Amino acid sequence: MNELIGRVFNFEKTVFPSSSELYGTLTRDGQSPKALMISCADSRIVPEEIMQARPGDLFVCRNAGNIVPPYASMLGGVSATVEYAVAALGVRDIIVCGHTDCGAMKALAYPEGLEAMPNVAAWLKHGSAAQTVVDSCQGHLEGDDRIRAMIYENVIAQLSNLRTHPSVARAMASGEMSLHGWVVDIHQGQVLGLDGQTGQFTTLRENTPLPVAVPAQARYQMAEAAE
Amino acid sequence: MNELIGRVFNFEKTVFPSSSELYGTLTRDGQSPKALMISCADSRIVPEEIMQARPGDLFVCRNAGNIVPPYASMLGGVSATVEYAVAALGVRDIIVCGHTDCGAMKALAYPEGLEAMPNVAAWLKHGSAAQTVVDSCQGHLEGDDRIRAMIYENVIAQLSNLRTHPSVARAMASGEMSLHGWVVDIHQGQVLGLDGQTGQFTTLRENTPLPVAVPAQARYQMAEAAE
Amino acid sequence: MNELIGRVFNFEKTVFPSSSELYGTLTRDGQSPKALMISCADSRIVPEEIMQARPGDLFVCRNAGNIVPPYASMLGGVSATVEYAVAALGVRDIIVCGHTDCGAMKALAYPEGLEAMPNVAAWLKHGSAAQTVVDSCQGHLEGDDRIRAMIYENVIAQLSNLRTHPSVARAMASGEMSLHGWVVDIHQGQVLGLDGQTGQFTTLRENTPLPVAVPAQARYQMAEAAE
Amino acid sequence: MNELIGRVFNFEKTVFPSSSELYGTLTRDGQSPKALMISCADSRIVPEEIMQARPGDLFVCRNAGNIVPPYASMLGGVSATVEYAVAALGVRDIIVCGHTDCGAMKALAYPEGLEAMPNVAAWLKHGSAAQTVVDSCQGHLEGDDRIRAMIYENVIAQLSNLRTHPSVARAMASGEMSLHGWVVDIHQGQVLGLDGQTGQFTTLRENTPLPVAVPAQARYQMAEAAE
Amino acid sequence: MNELIGRVFNFEKTVFPSSSELYGTLTRDGQSPKALMISCADSRIVPEEIMQARPGDLFVCRNAGNIVPPYASMLGGVSATVEYAVAALGVRDIIVCGHTDCGAMKALAYPEGLEAMPNVAAWLKHGSAAQTVVDSCQGHLEGDDRIRAMIYENVIAQLSNLRTHPSVARAMASGEMSLHGWVVDIHQGQVLGLDGQTGQFTTLRENTPLPVAVPAQARYQMAEAAE
Amino acid sequence: MNELIGRVFNFEKTVFPSSSELYGTLTRDGQSPKALMISCADSRIVPEEIMQARPGDLFVCRNAGNIVPPYASMLGGVSATVEYAVAALGVRDIIVCGHTDCGAMKALAYPEGLEAMPNVAAWLKHGSAAQTVVDSCQGHLEGDDRIRAMIYENVIAQLSNLRTHPSVARAMASGEMSLHGWVVDIHQGQVLGLDGQTGQFTTLRENTPLPVAVPAQARYQMAEAAE
Ligand SMILES: [Zn+2]
Ligand SMILES: [Zn+2]
Ligand SMILES: [Zn+2]
Ligand SMILES: [Zn+2]
Ligand SMILES: [Zn+2]
Ligand SMILES: [Zn+2]
Repeated sequence: MNELIGRVFNFEKTVFPSSSELYGTLTRDGQSPKALMISCADSRIVPEEIMQARPGDLFVCRNAGNIVPPYASMLGGVSATVEYAVAALGVRDIIVCGHTDCGAMKALAYPEGLEAMPNVAAWLKHGSAAQTVVDSCQGHLEGDDRIRAMIYENVIAQLSNLRTHPSVARAMASGEMSLHGWVVDIHQGQVLGLDGQTGQFTTLRENTPLPVAVPAQARYQMAEAAE
Repeated sequence: MNELIGRVFNFEKTVFPSSSELYGTLTRDGQSPKALMISCADSRIVPEEIMQARPGDLFVCRNAGNIVPPYASMLGGVSATVEYAVAALGVRDIIVCGHTDCGAMKALAYPEGLEAMPNVAAWLKHGSAAQTVVDSCQGHLEGDDRIRAMIYENVIAQLSNLRTHPSVARAMASGEMSLHGWVVDIHQGQVLGLDGQTGQFTTLRENTPLPVAVPAQARYQMAEAAE
Repeated sequence: MNELIGRVFNFEKTVFPSSSELYGTLTRDGQSPKALMISCADSRIVPEEIMQARPGDLFVCRNAGNIVPPYASMLGGVSATVEYAVAALGVRDIIVCGHTDCGAMKALAYPEGLEAMPNVAAWLKHGSAAQTVVDSCQGHLEGDDRIRAMIYENVIAQLSNLRTHPSVARAMASGEMSLHGWVVDIHQGQVLGLDGQTGQFTTLRENTPLPVAVPAQARYQMAEAAE
Repeated sequence: MNELIGRVFNFEKTVFPSSSELYGTLTRDGQSPKALMISCADSRIVPEEIMQARPGDLFVCRNAGNIVPPYASMLGGVSATVEYAVAALGVRDIIVCGHTDCGAMKALAYPEGLEAMPNVAAWLKHGSAAQTVVDSCQGHLEGDDRIRAMIYENVIAQLSNLRTHPSVARAMASGEMSLHGWVVDIHQGQVLGLDGQTGQFTTLRENTPLPVAVPAQARYQMAEAAE
Repeated sequence: MNELIGRVFNFEKTVFPSSSELYGTLTRDGQSPKALMISCADSRIVPEEIMQARPGDLFVCRNAGNIVPPYASMLGGVSATVEYAVAALGVRDIIVCGHTDCGAMKALAYPEGLEAMPNVAAWLKHGSAAQTVVDSCQGHLEGDDRIRAMIYENVIAQLSNLRTHPSVARAMASGEMSLHGWVVDIHQGQVLGLDGQTGQFTTLRENTPLPVAVPAQARYQMAEAAE
Repeated sequence: MNELIGRVFNFEKTVFPSSSELYGTLTRDGQSPKALMISCADSRIVPEEIMQARPGDLFVCRNAGNIVPPYASMLGGVSATVEYAVAALGVRDIIVCGHTDCGAMKALAYPEGLEAMPNVAAWLKHGSAAQTVVDSCQGHLEGDDRIRAMIYENVIAQLSNLRTHPSVARAMASGEMSLHGWVVDIHQGQVLGLDGQTGQFTTLRENTPLPVAVPAQARYQMAEAAE
């Protein structure tokens, strides 16, 4: 038997008993997670480890490349997960979280290897905006530099896609929603955040203000003012 | 600032330094996860906690309802994630993992509340087979019993969908792939597994054989034998 | 005028009168076909001839390559035909029937000629699992052997797709449905059937048990047993 | 065992031997069918019986409601079958063949029962044009009269859809293709054909000219003439 | 500031005041346009200039290549615009209007440049029928001649697509709808019209009958006649 | 003959001759439009009249509701038109232009009437974000006030969708692209513009700065700064 699979036996024996009070509360009261994190399926990026999150803290959507298709595609799992988080659970912070050494972003930067993976290729079409921006504005970059640029631009592109979702648009219009664009650098052990004002990614540090991609800002007085 | 968001500052300060050797190996050698887990976005179900997995152990796809659309839909994130796990990373154990008290499964069992969430409703169409089976074969169940039946049947339905993916079909034909169907019971603190032979879910316990939904079994001699 | 077209005049003159009693019963009582056959559009494979079926016996879906897309694609004709057969007419045996010398399977084995036929190419994507299995597990085969392997594997792949349809899943769960995977060998004048236990195709002969791809087996006690 | 399934044993014993010469020719030379018939999956409508066709005569596409989606949907089985028939096999007569007492057309005329069959409902969207015409131009009809009108209009609508397929458009432009719209009346034992000039269906009889929906008529001199 | 953008200030100052009576009527009574024109987005082809149309005269759908997808694709803008024009506004003349020197048609004739424009390439798939006809029936043409043939055939293909829309089919069946296929020649300063009877495009001139692609012709007596 | 259709004869006689020099230049040099306008198909809103544009000035995409689907849907006409304008023609100002008394926006505000127009209903799904914002943030508005709010919010939603298109994202990243959100008030004879900073629509007047939805702002130094 796969050795990892075998570890599941410990859940009943040790993991659950040691957190039984927390699980008890969470099953009695239901979940009320504090944020939605959309991150990569990569085994090295464990959202709960990065956030020191306990069960119940973080609603998590994970897929190859931390992609968020725009709203049009009615059957998608990311769209459903975003809608459930925002409309049913009232989540008001969404983090799109990329990471260095991302296999999906390598494929977006150097698509040659994608012929044998048509589903991955199709899925990465949702990263075309990143690809186009890097090709056009950073065309001189190569190798790791090109991949790193793709990782950043992909987070930016997915944030644009995220804004097309009605539940997100609604919470933004009413000034309740903050959008975050992060990149976990697993080489340096740092997390970088996008500052929407400057378009720059900067390292998240306690002594500097948290950069936010799209800060909460109410807009719902609009129609009146326009008259 | 959202208190959870603030915890990210600790990643650089304490989390990464305490695992720097592991991250060093994982960035130098790349990932080689031991399994793919497809589980729910629910904040209470942390795959790495259930498996006691460390960074690098588990490739993880998470969405509302631990759904796996069948192969036809070329643009989907789950399809891409499965393909990447199996074809690029060589994963040979896939776990479809449901859980008790699942909001998506409640919605599948009692769809009245879905009108305000059209994306979730559309996504849960991929669970129609579970819905049809429960309605027809377990129509007498109500409330928690009906939801629990839906949770089980949904895992079975998603395993059927998973088998339509070419990368999975290939690894099954060559006898390399095992498929697992689990349900985490966060009330009892247990994990149940589907036994594909009997169609029953039983509690996973160290002293009993691990129930497997579809055990590895080679079929590639087939064409010769048929002549 | 096309000579075949001209033969239609005989329907009123000779064909109908000679079966008027049967047609009378069938229009008075409606149809209650005994099986659904999904077979190729190939002119040489006449399902009713293979089965010695009379009008009213066999519900028939035919398309290039005897393909069954999985459930996801809501607008498809095969999905609709399966649903109508199982849900409206109560059919409980489904045969996916391939054949030797199949043009669609030749194209799946050697796709070079497909550039001029984009619709056929797109449709055969539903046979990708067969293609991937043959490439990977039978990559040494060439010519007719490769095509024959593709024909077998395509039947297996379409059976996997068929199982994702809710109406089929429901009838399987309640132990009412048998799935059959056949290949008509128009060179040898034989029909081969898939044995789901062994994964082998064997010639159907009266004096040996009928091999069945997925025999009827009830599963509906499941949820109770799991508690 | 299902009694019909059991009849398959006779294929090897009696059916094939009695036509072994024909099958021998057809496997040696390949198929060259004389027409493509798109007809309903209904068990009572056996295309080869209506046409007195032998193996090799008729390329056959069958689905619930003898539907032909228009060209846009790239993954469809009917589109692929049409393309294969016209582009690969050179078929130059296509028959869209409806029939009286058609369950799909009853559902189009009276859609109440479709709620339990979402795939059939979706598939019948391709018959919306028929539905709209009958509602608007024949709104006074009820019961069998309404259903009969739907059967006729559906054949007309599917012929419109068929004309959007590039392979058909090409063969029409070059004057090689004839399109036929038929309805088999299994109560009267007659076949009716659409006369494209008058828009009327009339009974096919040997002593009257065959009504043709869209007769072959070359148009390829067009561009020159326009200059 | 873009000089064209700056001209918008004149709308309030001069344009609106000089037509205030017309705008007053149009806002009070709503619009009742006399035709729907589907034309290219090309800046040189101003539908209202070609028709000397005033505000309120012409419902206008414009896109690259004056394309009309067939009915199947439920989410499309052209389908919605056609439906709104015919079903909500009662428009009874539809003009599909191509033009010489059309960039989209050049791309259809010589697709090499489309690799950098995947959306345009995908959209032009709806012109495949034109492409197939020109390749097959006019394969000897080159350069401007090939492009001109493509322009003509594209108008013909889009008219075929237009006929699949239920609202159009209904108005055609009841004899209320005329379809027009035009090409604006911006070199010669002429408009050519398709004569559906002959398949020829001829220059529109006051002293000759207006060629019409599909003239209004009632068909709604059909079902009665067929009995 | 429809009186409007008859006016086309004047194009050759008077319209073209009076602008023959302009058309001559435009056919000799090709088009180089100064902006792309995406506006409604409404007959009362003539983009060239609002802008006092001459042939060659304005690339125009028109559909019911001035909708821009997000990038995901690869086959769409608006996507193709945007891509052609930006990538092939180098357009650097895009105007999404709504208008008062818009039938599509009325339907979005009061969807009851949409049942008879399934295509329009499906198309307006791309305005769901506007609908959700108005329902949630302006739920107290009724009648004309609700419709007016929908018109504004729809322009804002379509601008969000527009930003997901790779060609637009690229031109925005390099600081070349300005996005404009306008509403033509055909009652007051004014044009209002969205100020992206404040989220307000204000009347465009020569003596005040032009409000811009998304001003040109380069972002391509980003990756460097982040290191
Ligand atoms: Zn990654
Ligand atoms: Zn869940
Ligand atoms: Zn075949
Ligand atoms: Zn039928
Ligand atoms: Zn053009
Ligand atoms: Zn409008």
